[in-house]
Amino acid sequence: MSDDLARMDATAQAELVESGDATPVELLEAALERAAQVNPEINAIIHDLADEAREQAAADVPDGPFKGVPFLLKDLGAAYAGQPLHMGMRLLKEADFRAPVDTFLAERFRAAGLITFGKTNTPELGILPTSEPEAYGPSKNPWDTTRTPGGSSGGSAAAVAAGIVPMAHANDGGGSIRIPASNCGLVGLKPTRQRITEGPLVGDNFSGLTCELVVSRSVRDTARILDAVEGSAPGDPYVAPAPLRPYVEELTDESTGLRIGTMTQPAVASDVDPECVAAVEVAARILSDLGHEVDDSSPLDLMPQGDEEAGMQIQDSFLTRWGAGQAALISQMEMLIGREITPDDVEPLTWALTEIGRDRTSGRYLADVALHHGVSRLIAGWYAGGHDLLLTPTMAEVAPKLGSFDQHGDNPMDAFHRAFPSGAFTALFNITGQPAISLPLHWTEEGVPVGAQLVAPFGREDLLLRVAAQVERAAPWADRIPPVFAGAVAGDAA
Amino acid sequence: MSDDLARMDATAQAELVESGDATPVELLEAALERAAQVNPEINAIIHDLADEAREQAAADVPDGPFKGVPFLLKDLGAAYAGQPLHMGMRLLKEADFRAPVDTFLAERFRAAGLITFGKTNTPELGILPTSEPEAYGPSKNPWDTTRTPGGSSGGSAAAVAAGIVPMAHANDGGGSIRIPASNCGLVGLKPTRQRITEGPLVGDNFSGLTCELVVSRSVRDTARILDAVEGSAPGDPYVAPAPLRPYVEELTDESTGLRIGTMTQPAVASDVDPECVAAVEVAARILSDLGHEVDDSSPLDLMPQGDEEAGMQIQDSFLTRWGAGQAALISQMEMLIGREITPDDVEPLTWALTEIGRDRTSGRYLADVALHHGVSRLIAGWYAGGHDLLLTPTMAEVAPKLGSFDQHGDNPMDAFHRAFPSGAFTALFNITGQPAISLPLHWTEEGVPVGAQLVAPFGREDLLLRVAAQVERAAPWADRIPPVFAGAVAGDAA
Repeated sequence: MSDDLARMDATAQAELVESGDATPVELLEAALERAAQVNPEINAIIHDLADEAREQAAADVPDGPFKGVPFLLKDLGAAYAGQPLHMGMRLLKEADFRAPVDTFLAERFRAAGLITFGKTNTPELGILPTSEPEAYGPSKNPWDTTRTPGGSSGGSAAAVAAGIVPMAHANDGGGSIRIPASNCGLVGLKPTRQRITEGPLVGDNFSGLTCELVVSRSVRDTARILDAVEGSAPGDPYVAPAPLRPYVEELTDESTGLRIGTMTQPAVASDVDPECVAAVEVAARILSDLGHEVDDSSPLDLMPQGDEEAGMQIQDSFLTRWGAGQAALISQMEMLIGREITPDDVEPLTWALTEIGRDRTSGRYLADVALHHGVSRLIAGWYAGGHDLLLTPTMAEVAPKLGSFDQHGDNPMDAFHRAFPSGAFTALFNITGQPAISLPLHWTEEGVPVGAQLVAPFGREDLLLRVAAQVERAAPWADRIPPVFAGAVAGDAA
Repeated sequence: MSDDLARMDATAQAELVESGDATPVELLEAALERAAQVNPEINAIIHDLADEAREQAAADVPDGPFKGVPFLLKDLGAAYAGQPLHMGMRLLKEADFRAPVDTFLAERFRAAGLITFGKTNTPELGILPTSEPEAYGPSKNPWDTTRTPGGSSGGSAAAVAAGIVPMAHANDGGGSIRIPASNCGLVGLKPTRQRITEGPLVGDNFSGLTCELVVSRSVRDTARILDAVEGSAPGDPYVAPAPLRPYVEELTDESTGLRIGTMTQPAVASDVDPECVAAVEVAARILSDLGHEVDDSSPLDLMPQGDEEAGMQIQDSFLTRWGAGQAALISQMEMLIGREITPDDVEPLTWALTEIGRDRTSGRYLADVALHHGVSRLIAGWYAGGHDLLLTPTMAEVAPKLGSFDQHGDNPMDAFHRAFPSGAFTALFNITGQPAISLPLHWTEEGVPVGAQLVAPFGREDLLLRVAAQVERAAPWADRIPPVFAGAVAGDAA
């Protein structure tokens, strides 16, 4: 049964429980078996919570839409009280740090019926688009174990792609849901800013850059989990616009005729790999065939042509915001552990960003956020001009080789500057707060997946899920499984 | 007719136009007459836009709910392209600075049918709760011209209280709508964070401290203008929860039984004037008589008792945020005027805050915002425990004498530290983003008005307007007019 289950999405697994064909305990044991089989190859899961999960699965599992489905939490963001929460940090690993409270989102995952049996690897503090923390070593891409699954939700994406779980928790402050989805052949939706509460301990992380959800293999799983966990909580500083109807209703909406623009060059100067452009071309053809209007208009048309300085300013402002975010985190952590944190405690890039956050002023921070809000206004103007969606590559490059983001050279910031252009298509929509989804629509000749990204106006996940479901029906990817896949041998996988 | 009009609210004036009993031109000329009569005494209006207003009133006035009603814009925030925008600054006055674009809110005021014929005085950059900028001199309180009308919307409040216009534009980043409303015997609603777009040039000012609307004499005017101008615009970084129904429907809703807590001591250590406590007692009695349940529970019950340090931390974090905001504004202004701004260009407190914004780090900024979000979570927990509204004094003191906020001593920050405790009841809800309204329910023996503040959960202006309308019916204030009132002589006014 394990091999069958590995190929099922979360909705299908929940149906087994619903129909009485499987129990939560059986699903859990099968997932643990799959993890035992492939995790050593990919290093996706770093905290084993099997004991707690077994207790939970054997008790009364809440009657949610994913009742009894095995699940993994990313070791950053959503967390259960008392469970390890290390955020990729040696410091917290050595301190055996535990989450002080259940986050609201973790409570909602549990209420949805999901059984969390482990936590997945991330880069330190989620900074890089690869998951190679000193604390836990590199996660590997199931499609090619010499490559990264991406980051920062790289462990989650690797675990899902390798068939351990059908979906896993992820979050995204610059592309950290969409990048691993692209690298691992998954569906990755970054919802609208503040669609899902970040509480109780966090209000509006990084002034609205970050958002939580999952990576999954099917569009329907993403729609159904979003229905289950979306919404604010009392005390949230901001609240996303309410959904127009349940997202699950988008899955069967066949309406077409949306106007979709295309952008294959980011605002930030960057070379874009032809494979990533190819993913857009595939997506454009599918969307056209479905009956949508695809053209080559994009918000770039509204920007001063060839204005490299503007692009650099956007990138440097992003650095201001990430630096401030890391510095704030480090100072909060110092209060938690009761001592100063030193360069020896963290990775070189973490320290370099913290120093930026301690060097750049609060006035500059607000001015840089205002600059980003100006960019958002400009992009919204493009949509207001008549477009419903924007189609872009998810990344500017194919999943990089492990070790590509080296922090140990003369300047640890090199790793950041290496990463930013590669994620320029994703980070732009952390700046604007718009929802964006990566879909697995293209594979290189070597069999490495490459995602295409669709971006909707603020608050309009409905459009993304509707179109994504149409695309999935037209060009299904469920049968494509990677060389490292639970219950399969490499020969079967292709 | 001018005296009658001076006593009419905006809704009543609009009815005259609607019924054909007055034309927009007649209403405007009468308002200009009233302004000529009393503005020299109170210095509320600092920019004369009579010519443009006459042109507008004589042309096709949009068919909005306030068609043809004369109006004033505060000289900070909402603005029309080409009109002076000085924000209380000598620097911008001397540069004859003009607004570069219509703000979305200004467009909405115009679409509502309002005819703007002037702009009102504010302290420099809206920093202080008094309106005594070096650039334009002090605005005076129509109830006692030795006192301040408050700030930063002091010019607007003085103009409305003195009967020049029935309502005027205002905005609030620490109490700047509610404080002048309290000091001048008006209705002052600060809406929910991001209820009204701040665009196109601003996204989320001061990370969500500020909000725009008006000061008015009647609750119905506030409800109707909120219906007319609320809502986001494309590109806004955040969007407030949609209203449950038009706010105007709250005006006739007689339902009672709301549970209302009371807080007469702010979290920040501060002496509260017994007159301000008296305003709360009056309000509590009215609310009780109406059939609401008033008790003495408050969010303070959830805070560590006597924790002065926590209060100081909240205050100091507010300073971080205001400093950052001023520093960002000053740097944006430097780009606009093309040169560095020096201490000679601005008032001493403005410079002191700018230096704080240039001194405190971006990391600290985010940590301080996070601290404030923690306060919001705690307060939301109090509401979630069963209360619908919180009743507090609007201010901790009666409208201070002019000259109370002196910036020219040894330490210009003294003026800030003088101001903060006095506005501790208002600033707290800029921190949380909750809607709050000041109602004129008490007058001192000397005849100076003192407001009481009602505070609703995030997004629930409906509750405030419903209850405020009930209170207004039970204890109407429309007949109370100040000694300085257009068309009246001092003897008539009492």
